[in-house]
Amino acid sequence: MKKYFELDPWNIIQNKLEPEDNRVAEGIFSIGNGYMGQRANFEEDYSGETLQGSYMAGIYYPDKTRVGWWKNGYPEYFAKVLNSTNWIGIGVEVDGDKLDLEKCKVENFERVLNMKQGYLCRTFTAEFSSGKRIKVEAKRFVSIVNKEIGAIKYSITPLNFSGMISFSPYLDGDVKNTDSNYDEKFWSEVSKKTEDGQALLLIKTKKLDFYLCSLMKYDVLKQAEKCKCNVEHFEKEKFVGNTVEVRVKENEKVAIVKYVANVTSRDFKPNELIEVGEKILQKAYNKGYENLLNEQAEAWEEKWKESDIIIEGDVSAQQAIRFNIFQLNQTYTGEDDRLNIGPKGFTGEKYGGSTYWDTEAYCIPFYLATADKKIARNLLIYRYKQLEKAKENARKLGFQKGALYPMVTMNGEECHNEWEITFEEIHRNGAIAYAIYNYINYTGDKLYLSEYGLDVLVEISRFWEERVNYSEEKHKYVILGVTGPNEYENNVNNNWYTNRIASWTLEYTIEALDYVKNNETSKYEELIKKLGLKEEEIAKWKDIINNMYYPVDEGFGVFLQQDGYMDKEQILVKDLDPKELPLNQHWSWDRILRSCFIKQADVLQGLYFLQHLYDKDTIRRNFEFYEPRTVHESSLSPCIHSILAAKLNKEDKAYELYLRTARLDLDNYNNDTEDGCHITSMAGTWMSVVEGFGGLKVKNNMLTLNPFIPSKWKSFSFKVMFRGCLIKVKVGKDNIKISNESKKDIKILVKNKPYFINSLKDITICAE
Amino acid sequence: MKKYFELDPWNIIQNKLEPEDNRVAEGIFSIGNGYMGQRANFEEDYSGETLQGSYMAGIYYPDKTRVGWWKNGYPEYFAKVLNSTNWIGIGVEVDGDKLDLEKCKVENFERVLNMKQGYLCRTFTAEFSSGKRIKVEAKRFVSIVNKEIGAIKYSITPLNFSGMISFSPYLDGDVKNTDSNYDEKFWSEVSKKTEDGQALLLIKTKKLDFYLCSLMKYDVLKQAEKCKCNVEHFEKEKFVGNTVEVRVKENEKVAIVKYVANVTSRDFKPNELIEVGEKILQKAYNKGYENLLNEQAEAWEEKWKESDIIIEGDVSAQQAIRFNIFQLNQTYTGEDDRLNIGPKGFTGEKYGGSTYWDTEAYCIPFYLATADKKIARNLLIYRYKQLEKAKENARKLGFQKGALYPMVTMNGEECHNEWEITFEEIHRNGAIAYAIYNYINYTGDKLYLSEYGLDVLVEISRFWEERVNYSEEKHKYVILGVTGPNEYENNVNNNWYTNRIASWTLEYTIEALDYVKNNETSKYEELIKKLGLKEEEIAKWKDIINNMYYPVDEGFGVFLQQDGYMDKEQILVKDLDPKELPLNQHWSWDRILRSCFIKQADVLQGLYFLQHLYDKDTIRRNFEFYEPRTVHESSLSPCIHSILAAKLNKEDKAYELYLRTARLDLDNYNNDTEDGCHITSMAGTWMSVVEGFGGLKVKNNMLTLNPFIPSKWKSFSFKVMFRGCLIKVKVGKDNIKISNESKKDIKILVKNKPYFINSLKDITICAE
Repeated sequence: MKKYFELDPWNIIQNKLEPEDNRVAEGIFSIGNGYMGQRANFEEDYSGETLQGSYMAGIYYPDKTRVGWWKNGYPEYFAKVLNSTNWIGIGVEVDGDKLDLEKCKVENFERVLNMKQGYLCRTFTAEFSSGKRIKVEAKRFVSIVNKEIGAIKYSITPLNFSGMISFSPYLDGDVKNTDSNYDEKFWSEVSKKTEDGQALLLIKTKKLDFYLCSLMKYDVLKQAEKCKCNVEHFEKEKFVGNTVEVRVKENEKVAIVKYVANVTSRDFKPNELIEVGEKILQKAYNKGYENLLNEQAEAWEEKWKESDIIIEGDVSAQQAIRFNIFQLNQTYTGEDDRLNIGPKGFTGEKYGGSTYWDTEAYCIPFYLATADKKIARNLLIYRYKQLEKAKENARKLGFQKGALYPMVTMNGEECHNEWEITFEEIHRNGAIAYAIYNYINYTGDKLYLSEYGLDVLVEISRFWEERVNYSEEKHKYVILGVTGPNEYENNVNNNWYTNRIASWTLEYTIEALDYVKNNETSKYEELIKKLGLKEEEIAKWKDIINNMYYPVDEGFGVFLQQDGYMDKEQILVKDLDPKELPLNQHWSWDRILRSCFIKQADVLQGLYFLQHLYDKDTIRRNFEFYEPRTVHESSLSPCIHSILAAKLNKEDKAYELYLRTARLDLDNYNNDTEDGCHITSMAGTWMSVVEGFGGLKVKNNMLTLNPFIPSKWKSFSFKVMFRGCLIKVKVGKDNIKISNESKKDIKILVKNKPYFINSLKDITICAE
Repeated sequence: MKKYFELDPWNIIQNKLEPEDNRVAEGIFSIGNGYMGQRANFEEDYSGETLQGSYMAGIYYPDKTRVGWWKNGYPEYFAKVLNSTNWIGIGVEVDGDKLDLEKCKVENFERVLNMKQGYLCRTFTAEFSSGKRIKVEAKRFVSIVNKEIGAIKYSITPLNFSGMISFSPYLDGDVKNTDSNYDEKFWSEVSKKTEDGQALLLIKTKKLDFYLCSLMKYDVLKQAEKCKCNVEHFEKEKFVGNTVEVRVKENEKVAIVKYVANVTSRDFKPNELIEVGEKILQKAYNKGYENLLNEQAEAWEEKWKESDIIIEGDVSAQQAIRFNIFQLNQTYTGEDDRLNIGPKGFTGEKYGGSTYWDTEAYCIPFYLATADKKIARNLLIYRYKQLEKAKENARKLGFQKGALYPMVTMNGEECHNEWEITFEEIHRNGAIAYAIYNYINYTGDKLYLSEYGLDVLVEISRFWEERVNYSEEKHKYVILGVTGPNEYENNVNNNWYTNRIASWTLEYTIEALDYVKNNETSKYEELIKKLGLKEEEIAKWKDIINNMYYPVDEGFGVFLQQDGYMDKEQILVKDLDPKELPLNQHWSWDRILRSCFIKQADVLQGLYFLQHLYDKDTIRRNFEFYEPRTVHESSLSPCIHSILAAKLNKEDKAYELYLRTARLDLDNYNNDTEDGCHITSMAGTWMSVVEGFGGLKVKNNMLTLNPFIPSKWKSFSFKVMFRGCLIKVKVGKDNIKISNESKKDIKILVKNKPYFINSLKDITICAE
């Protein structure tokens, strides 16, 4: 496998500029703070391969849908994550020669993502065709303390000449999305201002009227002292900047420090943006670059205290898990309950939309265990708030009642347009119901049901009720025409996962209704009235639960992917020519569809969710049947397999799949990281360690652990927050140490034995 | 149902301008001659709803494919039927007021398509806001005698004033396709020339370099005398014209006669086009409008002699069948073996491509029976010539051997891009094989096998061999992941029709190989060598034939649409709210897919093709099961049902379905005629009469008839050509009269009894 980056426990390091991999690196080295984010594009101009990307969370554009052939029910628009003002830009000239790494001779190139302190750094020497050589050091970050602020320090040292260096810091709103459907630009200019040492640009989206005001100030430093220079202004449409010139001597370092504030109409009124932005920028400017950077390092130290996973003895695994945690924390902080977790975060534009079932299936466990419960709760309430839109969506597809949540959305409306996904990947509804269960199971917050949960559960159950039909042939309820999580099968009948999660939703909804009925009777009455819920509906749900059809193969003793799966030619992944992988880049779509190969855990996804309902032998039989048929071409797949492999004591497999999920982007496993990182699957990586190797589960309101350590590792440790307690778990070869870092005592189950751990105490248990 | 047009045996008549239906009428009243065609757009400017369309057969444009989400295997382009130079245009002004029927008060509007003589005529009076009233008569045709020639006579009579009339005849190449994927124009200008009384415009396509030279000459007539007028020239990019002014008195008729020649680089070298075009135009001009029109009427009379169907006692049915035959004859003449029969002919742009399986399944029977056998043969050879491309197409989709013909094509390359159709409607391969059987069965031309047929049959058989797989579960060969003719099911397993036609292809290929082996031994050796055909292949085909899986329902005693069909909720079309029809305009796509409703004959299509292999009871059971579940939202559906209903003596059903197929466009059944007429299904209408009501089949090299007459009809008669004989069949209430209009005696089977009919004699048989 190609090696893209150097191994290091705290840093991602690229030590050679590889133009053909530059887009991959730009995604990997992205920085963000949950409010905004930025791909690792160069500050100076670059004529090589690059995908410029600056993103502001929650700002999107309803791009007109593009299809080959329209199908009834398609949405009119596809919400694009919006490439916004390029605020990092600093043009550089040396004695009139433009710096462009595509055209210079570059040596000692190094790009480092410092995950411990949260910044991106790049150093290199460049030689111009004139023979002049400079050393450049560029460091930048987006602040997790002052969310609107980004800062860059860009230094140049002439190595073999004295001459004139010019910097042209700018703000460029004349950007476009590479994935714009009709090659349109989405922003228009509102106003701009350019003065000596500062500039601002106010733009707005052509639809939906999002306003973004970007403001910059900068200093030029010679040998670390601010210096005064000649300044020229320049302006174009949606573009402002300055040019400053500094005369420098050989080996004399000159630097520009650029401070930027980005403020938007999501937080302020459009007509206040300039004033607010100026204040925020001025405050940061007054603080100064070094102080901002120190704040940043401290704040990241705090974050790591809560969420770090330490793996001793395996730097590759260590680096990978930190990279995943780092990117997750860069993408979503939970502070803004209008946001969700886009599949690419701030690392690329592909896919559009910000909310997929990934959030419920993969991200919620991470935030449940590493952050205050209100963050996971906010993610649930986000869906609650979109319930009306989900009901509208179901009506649009012809359903009389119930709610179908969208496959992809920004504001609750569906914006995806592939019929086999948009209309048929209805399993998403199940994951949204499951997340409610999962949240309550973890936090014990049963009041959530009457407050928000049941509204969602009942409407989803109503959808399933209408979506099943009774097969007179099978004398069972069936679900026809669906696509499961495994998107390498489309429009199938009786996808086991979908049937099971549908039936489970009905079960859980009835259980939840019973709970509220018995514990909050008056609230229950209100709810029933508000929802217009009838006894017949519940009776029907019970009938469906009791008579749902599940495809099985008696011979293998497994649940079947879907009806007819065993008609396929049964080949295993190991029998494929590795040159044909990934299949989706080598096989035509129909060949993939009719093959037995599985893109993503499907039956196993169901068994993972519902582990508490299936015995180990069942899980083992299914795992041993499906894993050899799974190509893991979805980023969401290997983590689930890894967790189940760990549960089944399949050490090597668990470890292999862990590396695959953890290093998916760092090693560009699926050859698609150039579009950006797979952010939501990173939560799956965390799950692989904590739920897989740690064996963490919550059963009967108790934290339970069942750890084992991969043979390559010396130890691994993680922290989880559980009902007010912060628990640190360190798993070594010989023992397991569990520390209760909170002020409450806690009883936990380790390998099925109960242990009490008093506040601020720890216990050590011998490994078998 | 809405009534669009007046009933008349020989004419289509619209007697009111209905702006909202204008696009429907424009398609219906289209004129063509197999070489070029023209929608019934107005000559003068019109600001109302219109789809401008002038088409030249065989000229197309490879428009860049547009998809929402790319799938591996999609073609890079979609070949568009190309809207070409608008040559009918004549701007009209009356005392400086522009004539525009959207803006004038229009009375006595009549648009007539004269099918007997092959022209389009339009008359109306228009009142301007000034109160001035004119009477207009416009008549035009494209010549079936001089294929490059179109001519228009456009007359104006001022009714209540004397004044100045100006005509601006022009050629406008600055046109575009409404269905252009990226709103691009496809033509660029090469040269142009404008003189008094004439002009020419030479344009070429931006890709593929098709050249089109359009040339015009015109005369202005006052009271039928040529008159000399002031002429002004005008030119713009891709646009040339004249303006002439004539002063006329009240009630004095003034007319312009415009002659146009369209010549293309398909027939001549680009640098000869102007010279050739000028000669052709001059010849037509010398002949004069009235002579050209007379020639046209005579030529159409000849055509009708061969292909007319006369229905007495039912003017609606009579008009409809003539309309279908007329449009077929306008679309394809068989003279140019590079052409095929596009689904919209010259009546619209939708769908693109010119060649679908429609040709083999629906059109070949029509041409076999109404034209010289070389025409059907040319249509077969068209596919033979594209065999290499079909092999490439199979390779592109990952097949090691065999040929997969494209779903839609212009030159043999696939140009459609919906995975469920492009990659999965592989049944088209079966229809292409079936057409070879059908042609040989009808004509007796068994030499065709060794000349061309076996190459195609063997490669198609090889495709089926690789495309099936052996199901270890069913212990049978299965075909997974297909879409049958019924496109309201996608990506299904074991579509009965596909499995059956695949197996039948293998059977027929083996039979054909045996025939050649036994009758043309040395040719056979050559062929086997050329094709590299191995005994093992034939053995494998036999194994597949013997072990193919066919889904059935024992209870109903029917072949099943596909695996799992009986799991669907079984509702009948009659139970649907008629407001929900057509489903494809009211239901979301997933709902259609999981419903039991069938767009188009599918099992029944197979039973129609293979009637000789199934007993009547089997056909009856399947018909009675499927017809109530079929919504006929494909234009290709009702004709097959009508034929089978006739065969099963279901008179009312056969008649109902006949009207549905025959008047599909005239009554705009599926609410989609605004995109153009359903040309290929028109051949199905002809089949409904001849094969359905006439019961015509060829068995053991003998023509057989089994006629019955719908109760509403007094009589119907048709002609067929069969192995050198022209046979006229007239079916009355009491008797059947069969005339042998040829110089050969013939023996035919009527209602299973043999009859000899001597040359130029007839027989009359009493109906039971």
